[in-house]
Amino acid sequence: MIKVGIVGGTGYTGVELLRLLSAHPDAQLTAITSRKEDGLPVADMFPSLRGHVDLAFSAPDKIDLAQCDVVFFATPHGVAMAQAPALLAAGVKVIDLAADFRLKDQATFEKWYKIPHTAPELLEQAVYGLPELNREAIKSAKLIANPGCYPTTMQLGFYPLLKAGLVDASSLIADAKSGVSGAGRKAEIGTLFSESSDNFKAYGVAGHRHTPETSAQLQRYTDDKVGLVFTPHLVPMIRGMHATLYARLTTDISNEALQALFEQQYQDEPFVDVMPFGSHPETRSTRGSNMLRLALHRPDGSDMVVILVVQDNLVKGAAGQAVQCMNLMFGLPESTGLKHIALLP
Amino acid sequence: MIKVGIVGGTGYTGVELLRLLSAHPDAQLTAITSRKEDGLPVADMFPSLRGHVDLAFSAPDKIDLAQCDVVFFATPHGVAMAQAPALLAAGVKVIDLAADFRLKDQATFEKWYKIPHTAPELLEQAVYGLPELNREAIKSAKLIANPGCYPTTMQLGFYPLLKAGLVDASSLIADAKSGVSGAGRKAEIGTLFSESSDNFKAYGVAGHRHTPETSAQLQRYTDDKVGLVFTPHLVPMIRGMHATLYARLTTDISNEALQALFEQQYQDEPFVDVMPFGSHPETRSTRGSNMLRLALHRPDGSDMVVILVVQDNLVKGAAGQAVQCMNLMFGLPESTGLKHIALLP
Amino acid sequence: MIKVGIVGGTGYTGVELLRLLSAHPDAQLTAITSRKEDGLPVADMFPSLRGHVDLAFSAPDKIDLAQCDVVFFATPHGVAMAQAPALLAAGVKVIDLAADFRLKDQATFEKWYKIPHTAPELLEQAVYGLPELNREAIKSAKLIANPGCYPTTMQLGFYPLLKAGLVDASSLIADAKSGVSGAGRKAEIGTLFSESSDNFKAYGVAGHRHTPETSAQLQRYTDDKVGLVFTPHLVPMIRGMHATLYARLTTDISNEALQALFEQQYQDEPFVDVMPFGSHPETRSTRGSNMLRLALHRPDGSDMVVILVVQDNLVKGAAGQAVQCMNLMFGLPESTGLKHIALLP
Amino acid sequence: MIKVGIVGGTGYTGVELLRLLSAHPDAQLTAITSRKEDGLPVADMFPSLRGHVDLAFSAPDKIDLAQCDVVFFATPHGVAMAQAPALLAAGVKVIDLAADFRLKDQATFEKWYKIPHTAPELLEQAVYGLPELNREAIKSAKLIANPGCYPTTMQLGFYPLLKAGLVDASSLIADAKSGVSGAGRKAEIGTLFSESSDNFKAYGVAGHRHTPETSAQLQRYTDDKVGLVFTPHLVPMIRGMHATLYARLTTDISNEALQALFEQQYQDEPFVDVMPFGSHPETRSTRGSNMLRLALHRPDGSDMVVILVVQDNLVKGAAGQAVQCMNLMFGLPESTGLKHIALLP
Repeated sequence: MIKVGIVGGTGYTGVELLRLLSAHPDAQLTAITSRKEDGLPVADMFPSLRGHVDLAFSAPDKIDLAQCDVVFFATPHGVAMAQAPALLAAGVKVIDLAADFRLKDQATFEKWYKIPHTAPELLEQAVYGLPELNREAIKSAKLIANPGCYPTTMQLGFYPLLKAGLVDASSLIADAKSGVSGAGRKAEIGTLFSESSDNFKAYGVAGHRHTPETSAQLQRYTDDKVGLVFTPHLVPMIRGMHATLYARLTTDISNEALQALFEQQYQDEPFVDVMPFGSHPETRSTRGSNMLRLALHRPDGSDMVVILVVQDNLVKGAAGQAVQCMNLMFGLPESTGLKHIALLP
Repeated sequence: MIKVGIVGGTGYTGVELLRLLSAHPDAQLTAITSRKEDGLPVADMFPSLRGHVDLAFSAPDKIDLAQCDVVFFATPHGVAMAQAPALLAAGVKVIDLAADFRLKDQATFEKWYKIPHTAPELLEQAVYGLPELNREAIKSAKLIANPGCYPTTMQLGFYPLLKAGLVDASSLIADAKSGVSGAGRKAEIGTLFSESSDNFKAYGVAGHRHTPETSAQLQRYTDDKVGLVFTPHLVPMIRGMHATLYARLTTDISNEALQALFEQQYQDEPFVDVMPFGSHPETRSTRGSNMLRLALHRPDGSDMVVILVVQDNLVKGAAGQAVQCMNLMFGLPESTGLKHIALLP
Repeated sequence: MIKVGIVGGTGYTGVELLRLLSAHPDAQLTAITSRKEDGLPVADMFPSLRGHVDLAFSAPDKIDLAQCDVVFFATPHGVAMAQAPALLAAGVKVIDLAADFRLKDQATFEKWYKIPHTAPELLEQAVYGLPELNREAIKSAKLIANPGCYPTTMQLGFYPLLKAGLVDASSLIADAKSGVSGAGRKAEIGTLFSESSDNFKAYGVAGHRHTPETSAQLQRYTDDKVGLVFTPHLVPMIRGMHATLYARLTTDISNEALQALFEQQYQDEPFVDVMPFGSHPETRSTRGSNMLRLALHRPDGSDMVVILVVQDNLVKGAAGQAVQCMNLMFGLPESTGLKHIALLP
Repeated sequence: MIKVGIVGGTGYTGVELLRLLSAHPDAQLTAITSRKEDGLPVADMFPSLRGHVDLAFSAPDKIDLAQCDVVFFATPHGVAMAQAPALLAAGVKVIDLAADFRLKDQATFEKWYKIPHTAPELLEQAVYGLPELNREAIKSAKLIANPGCYPTTMQLGFYPLLKAGLVDASSLIADAKSGVSGAGRKAEIGTLFSESSDNFKAYGVAGHRHTPETSAQLQRYTDDKVGLVFTPHLVPMIRGMHATLYARLTTDISNEALQALFEQQYQDEPFVDVMPFGSHPETRSTRGSNMLRLALHRPDGSDMVVILVVQDNLVKGAAGQAVQCMNLMFGLPESTGLKHIALLP
């Protein structure tokens, strides 16, 4: 059994890790920290876990995370970089669900996240935890930078086209829509029910932290300069993410060939579902599951290819992907504990 | 492996049976019928099942359900009564999720459901499928009448009080609230998003079919005449049911003793969670799970006890309870395939 | 033109007052205070008001509210009692939408609101602002205690029955359901979209501040001792309140006579709609309007009468009722500026 | 008073016309037809209208619409073209909220709507009812083709850029999102609450009827060939439309100059609100009002301009725009009866 610790289990990625790991056949929840909730049984905060999780939150100074085999950080940016060095030195593997190790370039990190990076020496060794594009490196990683939810959809959607050199890399557009849980479990007016229900808006159009992360990753797959316009929106739903991706074809290619390209790319992937050409994937078809689904479209009389991508932002976009990485790091079958079927309706 | 057939798999209880049974370690989905969707792969209608269910719908005349060990009817009222006799004669067990066999009295059935009962000879042998109150009979049953979602909450909430003779049986009130999925997957204006979102209303206050079912069942546990006022309401949420039950105490009893009564009653039940006295259970703490949770309250200066009960109407209120019955009927551990943790948030 | 001031315009009752008053033909928005938002144009916080409201928030010490003819307090409890004495002394009328003056008994106020009352000398002169039951007193009032949203539904629903002596006053039950905006515009986890969407729960069952307010008011209309069990619930909708009221008849009375009783009571009321017997009023039929609608039911074989009451908690349950009082206080037709038709769908 | 008839008042644009027109100071609701609901008081179907609309539905053959001054068609495509010729001949003005007269080219109409056009002789005389771009023609029109909701947002968003020749007309992208009421009040599974709540998806990506309408209109303002990729999505909200428009600048222009261009274009428009550069308009800021709001963005390091446009699809996108046209046709101030402030929250 893998002994698992969670730092920061009071947010939505935290409770989702608890849901997945408490039912994982090879994982044993060993420690969960929260300074503020020290002593509170986890199931008192999240009654959905009553009967499934007996653990209580511990203040960080009351528990030794070095007893764990792996520690997940479901924390705000800045926490993992402070604690990871000691854990890694003690032989504990670390999976960070925040952004501390996603950007290889320290200056870029500090520009976008507005805090100094206190463990820049780890940036090089950190492995970007997107299994579909980085599987081998993950298997031997000690420190995982788990991708954000938006970057996962954008990378898996654009990747086959960029790798095949079929599109203009400099004019990519990602019009993305996220459920409100992506904003986290924080007391803020903007994400109150009465503010975000029955409403729709864009946010962060001027510049979003996920743009440099995604651009840097996509750049690995093409020699052309990547240019990406990314527009995030807030959807009145709890879970779910939908990316509508636009790329301009530079080559004449049939719809069949396009479809074949994606199907071949992802045919062995347990968590990427290439739907029939022209499908309209719905976010709810992934609700609670680790599946990402996508479909291709070619609008009439245009040189655009449109890729529709959906996932559950808390699962494939966060906690599920982190567990997928854990499985790879510990030599387990990649799908272990991740076979949940989406909840529909 | 138990060979399972489903009649009427295109509704919400149908797709929920598919979700539960396709992941059930001892069940094998063998046949699913739909006259209208003959030949359509199930996963084309419900993309959440892509990769999990390979079956296609079959027209009823193209498939022999007698090859199954058990057949679930997730159909409108009237279908099971037509097909059950032949299946039972062929040795197939039947679990009806509709109302055909819930009322022992044929006249009462025909009054409320406004169709003639075509298999009244089966009414006596049908077993009411509420495991917590009827477990032994279910184990040896051939034909199960699976309770409705409202009656499950009302019976499990009122039962300990009635059995102990603590309340006035003649003046029970159940103010119940259901998510919209309880109305089924039917093209109707009243349950359109634009009609039922951001809205709340009661319905069927003048008389609802679940009242005679619940009254008849509750009457089994008391010699006093049961009188029940039941008011159903529609909540703008997909899944979930909340019953607020009011009973008038006829005896002086402490809160501690009341709480102990419920805890003892349900202490060995895998799917009933008696929460601490004064808790406010939320429907989402049961979303997608087979758990029913309840909590007791004693409003200041009143002789009333208030019982708050929540469940997922499609799981413990329908498909999950049916699978729980199947497990009992086939000698499996009662929780087999039913250990899903609720999806929160 | 009536010069109007608003104290605390950054909450939901505040913005609703702005919506109603900026379109009111006889009112002129003159001052709106917020310590925190001093200088911010109101329309920057609430873009719905762009083009309709030019005012900016002022810090309380920068503006003289004594220049107003009437001041509305859309503040937390405790603010109006501090400022009302000086305003009243200056000849300004005061309408408090919070609870400071709703309870005549100082000790009861302090028990439930847990703050000392600093203006107890005003409790006697404060007039309870429920026009349908207190119209004449409101006309000559200087200080209005505007009722809460729950108490409005309960009083207008139970009143005709209590006044006519038809029901057992000691065993009233109000099972009430509120949209989330009733919790206000405050940064709190419990009312985040991801917490309260697709969910339903009761709250405050052990005792809610609106119980003593409602009981005290109802007691005015009967010599029997009023006993009220009040159970509030949270509905995943923005606006709207639905009360399901249960009262036990002590007299034999026909449905027709019951209906006639309510119709006669409210026949001249512009904002109470007695729907046909057996109707199921929907909250959305009042969304954005000052109308309260109700309907009567007599469940089969019971001595109960069930009254279903709906309103928009921010309009008839708060800001609309306050404007209705203002109209009466200034001798205007009662419906002035309150003729909005509900937004459906 | 303008005598108004409505054909097809049982849908969402119908009830919205009723809400607006029953409070319009210069309009008198005179006739409303529905074959199916003949004799039913309108307020029985839409209780929000109780006390505001006394009219009952009439079967078409029982009422003479020629007595009206203007008739609105809130019907499916194909109805207006059948009835308009006779009404126009009788001197009645006609405003069609469906698509019958939106496309000047009969063949294009028949290709996209798959029905023969039975009044092609009226196509030339029909005036496209977008006041901001077509005001003078509307004033003298006899027959108005009221634009669809999507085309309104796209045209008002792209127009200033096309007219000024600043962008590549051949590569416009409109990623648009609509509330569910846009699908109408029809009994269909796809728009049930349980299907569309807590969900997000694109639809009609392969080709949508609003693309040719919008392209043809935009083509009027540029000599370059217009190329438009339009991707509609369904948002789990009742009302509201958000268009995220992408256009590639062909000229170097400052943000200030871009902003000034839009502000000058729309400075006298009562129903177009150009928000400060970099704003994120929310759909709810237009809920129930006839206002369209937009804001400009320039993503970092790209030659794209992004225009965010919001409106209420049932008001500025349908019924409100139709009333705005009526006002112009009858010489009334354009805002008459259209000054509703959006309902927020």
